[in-house]
Amino acid sequence: MKPLTSSKVCTLCNKNEQFFSREYSGEKLCKKCFTQSIESKVRATITRYKMLRFNDHLAVAVSGGKDSLSLLYILAKLNKFRPNTTLTAVTVDEGIEGYRNEALEIAASNCKQLKIPHHIVSFKELYGFSLDEIVQRARSRGETELTACAYCGVLRRKAINAGARQVCASKVATAHTLDDEVQTVLMNIFHGDVMRLAKEKPVTSEVHPLLVQKIKPFCEIPEKESALYAYVKKIDFQDTPCPYASEALRNDIRGMINQMEAKHAGTKFTVFKAIERLRPALEETAKKEKFQTCKECGEPSALDLCKSCELLGHVR
Amino acid sequence: MKPLTSSKVCTLCNKNEQFFSREYSGEKLCKKCFTQSIESKVRATITRYKMLRFNDHLAVAVSGGKDSLSLLYILAKLNKFRPNTTLTAVTVDEGIEGYRNEALEIAASNCKQLKIPHHIVSFKELYGFSLDEIVQRARSRGETELTACAYCGVLRRKAINAGARQVCASKVATAHTLDDEVQTVLMNIFHGDVMRLAKEKPVTSEVHPLLVQKIKPFCEIPEKESALYAYVKKIDFQDTPCPYASEALRNDIRGMINQMEAKHAGTKFTVFKAIERLRPALEETAKKEKFQTCKECGEPSALDLCKSCELLGHVR
Repeated sequence: MKPLTSSKVCTLCNKNEQFFSREYSGEKLCKKCFTQSIESKVRATITRYKMLRFNDHLAVAVSGGKDSLSLLYILAKLNKFRPNTTLTAVTVDEGIEGYRNEALEIAASNCKQLKIPHHIVSFKELYGFSLDEIVQRARSRGETELTACAYCGVLRRKAINAGARQVCASKVATAHTLDDEVQTVLMNIFHGDVMRLAKEKPVTSEVHPLLVQKIKPFCEIPEKESALYAYVKKIDFQDTPCPYASEALRNDIRGMINQMEAKHAGTKFTVFKAIERLRPALEETAKKEKFQTCKECGEPSALDLCKSCELLGHVR
Repeated sequence: MKPLTSSKVCTLCNKNEQFFSREYSGEKLCKKCFTQSIESKVRATITRYKMLRFNDHLAVAVSGGKDSLSLLYILAKLNKFRPNTTLTAVTVDEGIEGYRNEALEIAASNCKQLKIPHHIVSFKELYGFSLDEIVQRARSRGETELTACAYCGVLRRKAINAGARQVCASKVATAHTLDDEVQTVLMNIFHGDVMRLAKEKPVTSEVHPLLVQKIKPFCEIPEKESALYAYVKKIDFQDTPCPYASEALRNDIRGMINQMEAKHAGTKFTVFKAIERLRPALEETAKKEKFQTCKECGEPSALDLCKSCELLGHVR
């Protein structure tokens, strides 16, 4: 075998062949150093934001896509060094014919392989309707303003919390990546909803006993690298997109941020860090949200009726 | 003459022919209603932000381009109802061969027509070098990192303040449009410089006796409408772009915001309003900037040496 020329050698181990060029840092990594760097970045994020205590029971929201399975894989790996932390995977079955079943099977098989308990929580069971039924009923009643994603976003968030509570988790981890976080920041700005910036953070504040604290261990991992991790580790994930996927504004913003990142490497981190610096100012001023109890479902809610029950009101 | 069909008639006066379709409001205006709407929007902005007191002597920064001449024109018009407010136009002569002289002549002839005193303040006189000389000297010394715009932006800001002080103005108005403001917000976010959001506002805080308070009466006028105003009013303005124009990041951001606006009309206003809501939180937390006196020029500065003198240090 011919020796590698130095220009093709991993800049970290100086041994293996380059596989990934990390533009924002200048590193050119081999597969092994790349996956190790992702794992150690996640560990550093968990430490920096004090995401875990030594005896947490962590629910991991697993959709069956690349990000959530990479996260589950990495948390399982890191967990070997945290014998007092336990993991349970929680998957939300929204009820999307021809799409969700495949994801559920993939999620289950990964959990089995990793020896992690797997809990499924379904829209049908929680709300009485699957997402398909909700969309059909809304359409048949002439509700055209809201997309399927608008219903799903609200209801899935509540379902993840319900699932985490059902398994008695002390925290729940979601696989929001750096890209998700930066897109959400700009969406909030473009929607004019800036006080939301105070709430969307790597570790949510504990504001109500019925809300399980959420952590985002991938908040400093670019989506591209999370996908690449799944690919290198040969993780079996679902890669068909959701048939309802229709978040027009988010798609525009994703394109725009990716263009900026391509021209000015590191933009995503810069925005993320900027918002981190800005957040304490917002948190101080943002009125402490006073939680009430939703009169319909008894869950914590900023208003008399929670957003989920308001949306379900359209289709009941 | 055939009567206009109702679909072609101005939605405000219901009489004249449509000329401009304002996507974000749904109005379709004739020329007269359009220009009146701009004038009354500017008056409303001035009132809302308490930009003027009854006896202000207002310096208007006039570059000779469409925005600053539209602003001068409108302020002159509004001023007929404010007999105690006086206006002086201030033009900065950066010293750009083959570009700035035309703009100076255009600015002077508009001022003459509007019977407004015109004061010119030049880089050469203030700093000892024209912008052309600064750029040449920087290049010949191998300073390649900073663009002409980077020098010009800092030095022009200081020159406008110096010019306003020379004419003993109590305030200085600049023609920053809604587009400029929104671009600056996103640039600050993409640069990670969020605390700057607290400072860039429609009326600057009075932080130092040597800094003339700045107001931005066009902060709620889209750039397109400011240009259209100049066109309808047949204002003679310079429309050749500056030969140095090279703000790569701002150009990218401008394109991106314009795309968003085209798809989601009203985006620019939404961002502007969002930042307005966010600003009080930032202002409270942002450390009160302690101004010192620049050891070189004696002007107020956040640091020992002001940014202008630091830049001039490259070429002296």
